[in-house]
Amino acid sequence: MMKPILAVLACITVQGAVAQDSDSLTIRRLADEVLTNSAAYENLRVLTKQIGGRLAGSPQMVKAEKWGAEVLKAAGAEKVFTQECLVPHWVRGDKEQAKIVSRRRDLVPPLHVIALGNSVGTGAKGVTAPVLEVRSFDELEAKKDAVKGKIVFYNYPFNPTFVKTFHSYGDAVKYRSQGPSRASKYGAVAVIVRSMSHSTDNYPHTGSTRYNDSFPKIAAVAIGLQDAERLSRRIVNDPTMQVFLRTTCEMLPDTIGHNVIGELRGSEFPDEYITVGAHLDSWDNCEGAHDDGAGVVQSVEILRAYKSLGMRPKRTLRVVLFANEENGVRGGAKYAKLAKLNNERHLFALESDAGGFTPRGFIMDMKPEQRAKVKSWAPLMLPYGLYDFDEVGSGVDITPLGRAFGIPMAELSPDSQRYFDIHHAASDTFESVNKRELEMGAVGMGALIYLVDKYGL
Amino acid sequence: MMKPILAVLACITVQGAVAQDSDSLTIRRLADEVLTNSAAYENLRVLTKQIGGRLAGSPQMVKAEKWGAEVLKAAGAEKVFTQECLVPHWVRGDKEQAKIVSRRRDLVPPLHVIALGNSVGTGAKGVTAPVLEVRSFDELEAKKDAVKGKIVFYNYPFNPTFVKTFHSYGDAVKYRSQGPSRASKYGAVAVIVRSMSHSTDNYPHTGSTRYNDSFPKIAAVAIGLQDAERLSRRIVNDPTMQVFLRTTCEMLPDTIGHNVIGELRGSEFPDEYITVGAHLDSWDNCEGAHDDGAGVVQSVEILRAYKSLGMRPKRTLRVVLFANEENGVRGGAKYAKLAKLNNERHLFALESDAGGFTPRGFIMDMKPEQRAKVKSWAPLMLPYGLYDFDEVGSGVDITPLGRAFGIPMAELSPDSQRYFDIHHAASDTFESVNKRELEMGAVGMGALIYLVDKYGL
Repeated sequence: MMKPILAVLACITVQGAVAQDSDSLTIRRLADEVLTNSAAYENLRVLTKQIGGRLAGSPQMVKAEKWGAEVLKAAGAEKVFTQECLVPHWVRGDKEQAKIVSRRRDLVPPLHVIALGNSVGTGAKGVTAPVLEVRSFDELEAKKDAVKGKIVFYNYPFNPTFVKTFHSYGDAVKYRSQGPSRASKYGAVAVIVRSMSHSTDNYPHTGSTRYNDSFPKIAAVAIGLQDAERLSRRIVNDPTMQVFLRTTCEMLPDTIGHNVIGELRGSEFPDEYITVGAHLDSWDNCEGAHDDGAGVVQSVEILRAYKSLGMRPKRTLRVVLFANEENGVRGGAKYAKLAKLNNERHLFALESDAGGFTPRGFIMDMKPEQRAKVKSWAPLMLPYGLYDFDEVGSGVDITPLGRAFGIPMAELSPDSQRYFDIHHAASDTFESVNKRELEMGAVGMGALIYLVDKYGL
Repeated sequence: MMKPILAVLACITVQGAVAQDSDSLTIRRLADEVLTNSAAYENLRVLTKQIGGRLAGSPQMVKAEKWGAEVLKAAGAEKVFTQECLVPHWVRGDKEQAKIVSRRRDLVPPLHVIALGNSVGTGAKGVTAPVLEVRSFDELEAKKDAVKGKIVFYNYPFNPTFVKTFHSYGDAVKYRSQGPSRASKYGAVAVIVRSMSHSTDNYPHTGSTRYNDSFPKIAAVAIGLQDAERLSRRIVNDPTMQVFLRTTCEMLPDTIGHNVIGELRGSEFPDEYITVGAHLDSWDNCEGAHDDGAGVVQSVEILRAYKSLGMRPKRTLRVVLFANEENGVRGGAKYAKLAKLNNERHLFALESDAGGFTPRGFIMDMKPEQRAKVKSWAPLMLPYGLYDFDEVGSGVDITPLGRAFGIPMAELSPDSQRYFDIHHAASDTFESVNKRELEMGAVGMGALIYLVDKYGL
C-alpha cells in the first residue's frame, strides 16, 4: 500500500513551472489568510459554548441552524438558504442509571453508561438481570443458549495495533450497531457495549445502534472503559452479581430539520457546484466540538477566506451544513435528492468529519485517474502537512450525492490518534480543539478546493 | 524544498524484496509491542505526578535521576550507570510579581509573568518604571535614547504564517535570549518579553536568557499572551502608567548533576554505540511532560520493547537521559567529552525533544548520502505516519557528541502545532500528553534505530 503513495507522489504532472508557482502563491495567500485572520476558532466557541450538543429534533438543533445561516452570511456567502427534511426525533430521557447489584452488599460505585442512539429504553422500572460477557460475536453464538434473560456485555476492546484509529473503529463498531439485535435474537433483555475508544478516562461514548426488525428491540448502552474493566473483573469474582439498568430514551415521531447552505457564485461555470461541508448536528452528551463543529467552521472558513481575499471560484462554491448525520443521514440524502430533482451539475464534494486535528491528507472515493490528478498536486499541499492521498473513503453526508451523480468525493483526513478519545463522549468540548490544528485543516481543505476548482477533476 | 522530498522519497534503494519484507515484519513487531504493552505512558505519569518540575540543582532533579536509573533497570537495561557533571544552580526565588501602577488608581489585575531562566532578580524591593514597548530590535535601536530608566517590553508576536511552529520560535526567541542585554546596553532597568507561543491562554512561558557580559545584567520576565495584549493596550491609553516588577531569582554556585544511562549490549559490534536519548531535567514551573518527559519515556520504551521481544541490537544501544538541557547543556557536553576521553566509537545519535505529539518524521544533521540512505527506508516508516525527512537539525543534547565525532544525528519531528502552547509553561502537564501519540513517537524512533542498527549509516 505504501509503494503506490511514494510512486505516485513522485509522478508530478508537469503543469508548467509558471502555473505551479502561481498555484503555490495562491495557496500561500489562502494559508496566510486563514492562519492570520481565521474566524473558525471563535465560530466554534460560539457553536459549542452557546449552543452545545444539538441532536436532530432538539431545541439546540434549531438554534444551530439559525446560527449556521448567520455565520455563512457573516462569512460573505452571497446566497444563504435551507433545505427542509424529515429527521428522526430520538430523546434520551432521564439520565441513564446502571449499577452492580450484589449479594455482597458492598458499596459499589455506579457504572458510567450512556444509552446508544436510537435505542429503546428499559422503561421507568429498569431491568435487573445477570450479565453474560462476550468478547466477540463468535463467543455470543457459542453461548447462545446462555443468553436468555441476561444482559449481554460486549467487551471487545479497540485493537491497539491499528495505526489509524479509524481502522480500530471499523473493526469494533459492529458490536454497537448490530450487538443489541444479535443478542435479542437469543432472548437477552438488554445490552452493554464497551465504548468505541482508546481513551484512558471513564466517559462512555454513544453512537447509533441499528436494530434488526426481525428481533425484539432491547435497551442498549455503552459503558466507559474503566467501568468496562471493572465490570469484567466483577463478573469473574462475584458470579451471582446482576446489573440494574434504567434508560427512558425513546424514538418520537419524525420532525423537521434543515440543511443550511451558503454559496459563492462561480465566475465561469456558475451552474457547476463544488460542495464542501460538514454535519451541523451532534450527539447531545457533548459540545460536538470535533464532531462535527470543527468541520462546520472549517467549511465556513474556506468561503470566508475566499471572500476576504477577493477570490472568486470558477465553479459555484457551496458550503453545506448537513442535518442529522449522527442518527439518520436524512440531510445528506435530501441534499442529493434535491440536487437530482433540480438537475444540478456537480463536480466534486469534500467533507470534514474526522475532527479538527492536524491534517495529514484526504481519504477519497474517485476514479484512479482522478486520484492521480489529485496526487499530481501533492507538492503544492505537502508544505501544509498533507501527504496521504491513498485511502479510499468519503464523508457520510456527501456520499448520497457522490453515489447519485458518480462524482469524485473526498474527506479531510486528520491525524487520528485522539479522535476516538473524544468521539461521541462528554470530552468532545471546545477545549479539546486546538486553534492551530483547526486552522491547518481549513488550509488543507482550501488548497484542495482551489485546485479542483481551477483544474477540474 | 519540496521537490527534494518527493524526488528522493521516490528513490527507493532496492534492498531486496526479502529484506524489505523482513524489516517490515520486524518493525511491525516492534510497533505492536509498543502499542500493546508500552510502559511509556505510565512511566510518564510517575515522572510528572510524583516528581514533577525538575530543574538542574533542585531536589526534584535528584529524585528524577534515581527514578531514571530505576526505569532503565525495569526496562531491562543490562548496564545502568551515571555520568557526573557540574550543572548551574539557578533558583527562582519568590513567586514573581508584576502589576500595572497607574495614577488612575483603578483595580487592575496583576500581570502574569515568569522570570526567564538564568536571569537575575530585581531584588526584594522590586523595580517600578515606565514601560517602553518595542516590536523589534530595529525599533529598540531607533528608540535607544528613550530606553534609559525604563522597562523594555518586547512584544514581538509569534508569526502565524509559519506552518511549522518551530520556525515561528526560531524567528521570535531572540527577544528572549538577547533582549535583556540589548536593552541593558541602553540603560533599561528590566525587561518583559512576550511569551514564545501561539497559545490562547495566559500562562507565561519561561526559557533561558543569555546575558552579554559587556552590559549590566537586568531582571527579565516573560508575560502571558493575554496580558501582553492587555499591557500593550494599557500603554497606549494610560501613558503615565508604570509597571512594578519583583523577582528574587538568582544563580547560585554550580552543583552536581548526572546523565543517567542504560545499555543493551550489541551482538556484533558491542563497542559501537547508538545513542538514543532525551533530557531528564525540566523547567520548574511545570511537570515537564512534553518537555522532555515524553522523550525520556520514549527512549526508555525502545530499550524495553527490544528486551521484551528478545531482540538484541547489533551495536550497543545506549539510552541516555541527559542532565541540564534547559539552562546549560552540561550533560550533553559531558557525554561527548567522556565519549572522546574513553575513545568510544559512535555510529549514530537520536534524540526526542520536540514533544510527545503525533510523529511526522525526523529532522537530521548528516551527510547527503546518509540522508539518502535514511530516505530509502521511507516506505518502511510511512505506515507509521513518518514521511518528513528533509529538515536539517538535531537534538540539543546529542549535538556535542555529533560535532565531536562527526556522526549523523537525528531528532524525532512530531507535529508541531501544539508544542509551543505548552512549552516551558504550567500547561506542560501529564494530561497534555496523549498516550497513543506518545507511543507512536516511540514506534517511529524504534523503527529508525532498528534500521540504522541493521544497515549502518
